[in-house]
Amino acid sequence: MIEYRNLRVALLGAGSVGAQVADQLLTHSDELAARVGAGLELVGIAVRSMDAQRDVELPAELLTTDAESLILGADIVVELMGGLEPARTLILQALTSGADVITANKALLATHGPELFETAEQVGAQLYYEAAVGGAIPIIRPLRDSLAGDRVRRILGIVNGTTNFILDRMDTLGESMEQALATATELGYAEADPTADIGGYDAAQKAAILASLAFHTLVPVDAVYREGITGVTLEQVVAARRAGYTVKLLAICERLTDESTGTDGVSARVYPALIPLSHPLAAVHGANNAVFVEAEAAGPLMFYGAGAGGIQTASAVLGDVVSAARRHVAGGPGVAESTHADLPVLPIDAVTTRYQISLEVQDETGVLAEIAQLFEQQGVSVETVQQSPPPRPLPGEQPPSGAATLVIGTHQASEADLAATVAALTTSSVVHAVTSVLRVEGLS
Amino acid sequence: MIEYRNLRVALLGAGSVGAQVADQLLTHSDELAARVGAGLELVGIAVRSMDAQRDVELPAELLTTDAESLILGADIVVELMGGLEPARTLILQALTSGADVITANKALLATHGPELFETAEQVGAQLYYEAAVGGAIPIIRPLRDSLAGDRVRRILGIVNGTTNFILDRMDTLGESMEQALATATELGYAEADPTADIGGYDAAQKAAILASLAFHTLVPVDAVYREGITGVTLEQVVAARRAGYTVKLLAICERLTDESTGTDGVSARVYPALIPLSHPLAAVHGANNAVFVEAEAAGPLMFYGAGAGGIQTASAVLGDVVSAARRHVAGGPGVAESTHADLPVLPIDAVTTRYQISLEVQDETGVLAEIAQLFEQQGVSVETVQQSPPPRPLPGEQPPSGAATLVIGTHQASEADLAATVAALTTSSVVHAVTSVLRVEGLS
Repeated sequence: MIEYRNLRVALLGAGSVGAQVADQLLTHSDELAARVGAGLELVGIAVRSMDAQRDVELPAELLTTDAESLILGADIVVELMGGLEPARTLILQALTSGADVITANKALLATHGPELFETAEQVGAQLYYEAAVGGAIPIIRPLRDSLAGDRVRRILGIVNGTTNFILDRMDTLGESMEQALATATELGYAEADPTADIGGYDAAQKAAILASLAFHTLVPVDAVYREGITGVTLEQVVAARRAGYTVKLLAICERLTDESTGTDGVSARVYPALIPLSHPLAAVHGANNAVFVEAEAAGPLMFYGAGAGGIQTASAVLGDVVSAARRHVAGGPGVAESTHADLPVLPIDAVTTRYQISLEVQDETGVLAEIAQLFEQQGVSVETVQQSPPPRPLPGEQPPSGAATLVIGTHQASEADLAATVAALTTSSVVHAVTSVLRVEGLS
Repeated sequence: MIEYRNLRVALLGAGSVGAQVADQLLTHSDELAARVGAGLELVGIAVRSMDAQRDVELPAELLTTDAESLILGADIVVELMGGLEPARTLILQALTSGADVITANKALLATHGPELFETAEQVGAQLYYEAAVGGAIPIIRPLRDSLAGDRVRRILGIVNGTTNFILDRMDTLGESMEQALATATELGYAEADPTADIGGYDAAQKAAILASLAFHTLVPVDAVYREGITGVTLEQVVAARRAGYTVKLLAICERLTDESTGTDGVSARVYPALIPLSHPLAAVHGANNAVFVEAEAAGPLMFYGAGAGGIQTASAVLGDVVSAARRHVAGGPGVAESTHADLPVLPIDAVTTRYQISLEVQDETGVLAEIAQLFEQQGVSVETVQQSPPPRPLPGEQPPSGAATLVIGTHQASEADLAATVAALTTSSVVHAVTSVLRVEGLS
């Protein structure tokens, strides 16, 4: 083997992922050197405070609060600080100085990705971000390289572990949203302020990254349609299971044609949806993540694993460190991210989905026909109707006399037609209440 | 974008995968050129016979029977002929002439892999083989790159679609092995001579490739312990499901310490095994493949998809073509396969597994104690015992008077101790017959 000088690695951030990355670089240095063909020298760790409490004890002499000086002369810079600034500025400085950069910063990529990738291309450096989506799960590299000769049609991803944990507890243990969220917080799966997770913001950032990569086109996070799980009730989850579905928060990226304008484009969206229990994503429990990819030639593929956790995410970061180091040893310039396709991002109105709508209706002759006609008038085709006894009244409550519950499954319908249908249902004299409207995904 | 000369791609073989690769290269040339940053020119297709029947019509002017001339001057050679020769010689010639080579030839890699990888390293060319294991499923690249900073502990793979199809029909439809094999043959999932699949030879080749890559060590196919599925009976599959398991043909690659000698090494083996219905691999139905990887930091990961099929496998081949082409455009030398770890491949005797053993025994007082003692004498610890009524006698057959069926689950036991136990059971006066011995995998 040719002797090669040590590669200098600078680490920015020593939180739960950063501390594990540092620990692994120090503990497994011989093994990593053998895999790379050169030593990896951790030259320093930029931290906000020198004496913060950390998951792993780190050598004090490696710590510094001066990130700017640390990145000077580094071959590889690993950014695990999170947040937009100073991460953005430091990454731009590192790239410009010729270093390859590894980041797990999904917020930054979803917001300033184009600027970072353009800079990397201009200077011939590489920006790696396997850990930004799906934690330990290899998904970025398969999309960028393995499927580079194929055409991705659709991605359905469970990309947020916190919300999957909550929905899974509701489904399998019958907990309410509040109970499940409390458990998630207690076990460290949810942050003190859980908005980024349960509001779907984290999933939307990941959807933007996945869609940009899969469709070779720029999908900014602002263009991702987003609904969180706060509106999901235990009743919906229970009813879904009874009907052969489970509720998951999905990040959906899709090649699409806007039927109203004939425009080819892409859609990226995040919302809670029903998926059939037979779908591989239905078996993703707890805080796990999975990304289901449908490609034209490859057919359906699924990538499954731990979506978060310090040591798990560190695995993905270190895979990128080794890739970057091998590239340095080999000496070639990087492969730039290419957004050559430049497809428009279509609004949610261009999307058609199946829906499942639950109604409380007047239980009398002719109601079903009236409701069927109402759907037809809005251009929404009904596929299935299930009638069940009215929900059990709460203690002290009077059951609505002569009420019945209808669960209506539709064929593919547009958001606009569905909204018009729901509006018409709400004002119909035979409908007491529209109790649930959920999209259905993953049916063939 | 910098203008770059077209890259010359030579294709060897126009079978079900080759014809699809040619078709995609021709149909999607603009899109591929945009992704690579240079045109991909299919300069010719080497075939055995000019007028063979093919899945896809190919331009006659591209066909040639002179493979040796075709590879001269090619930048990228795609070998999809299969078999050891002339594939081996042609690949060596192509590498030596400076071309990158893509192959899906698992038999060749499992047999002559070291020679091919050494040649590639010497000349600075790259050998890609994503399609050799798991068809369309990206598994080679995740193991080589994404997990390059982690340590793989174990791989459990369903890597042969034919046998999974057969076992799945037995499990879900109650078909016998013969019926299921007949269906597989009829639907084109099994070859006229199914030995390579049902004998476990195909899976053993893939196990050798996966183990070599995961453990950075040379695992020749001869060192892979192999049992096929021919001995699996419908009775075993039915009994397995009743006990909460399903039977899968597994390729298992594992970091292991031989307890008898204290030697650290690796094990690669293929055999039908019980896995719990709650394990993600249990949900892999039909001819699909899945590879379950346990890594030290990443934890459990699973990669799932179509394990075979012309167009599906073509997706993986084209991903490699794009990677090779990008490397040519970028200009750097390849990353060599590294077998730096050089761990010994341990024999099957070094492996400990759990077992499930079914016995027909004399139904009388003291039998259970006698059998428990017999296990204990051989050093095999019993975890569970289930007693069930004797199997229904076949028409005209007399049920053995006073017989009962015992299903015994063991703790981890060595192959040698288990073999001694089975031998002792067979000669025991209270045992009528040992009706089933199966290993159990995937229990935590």
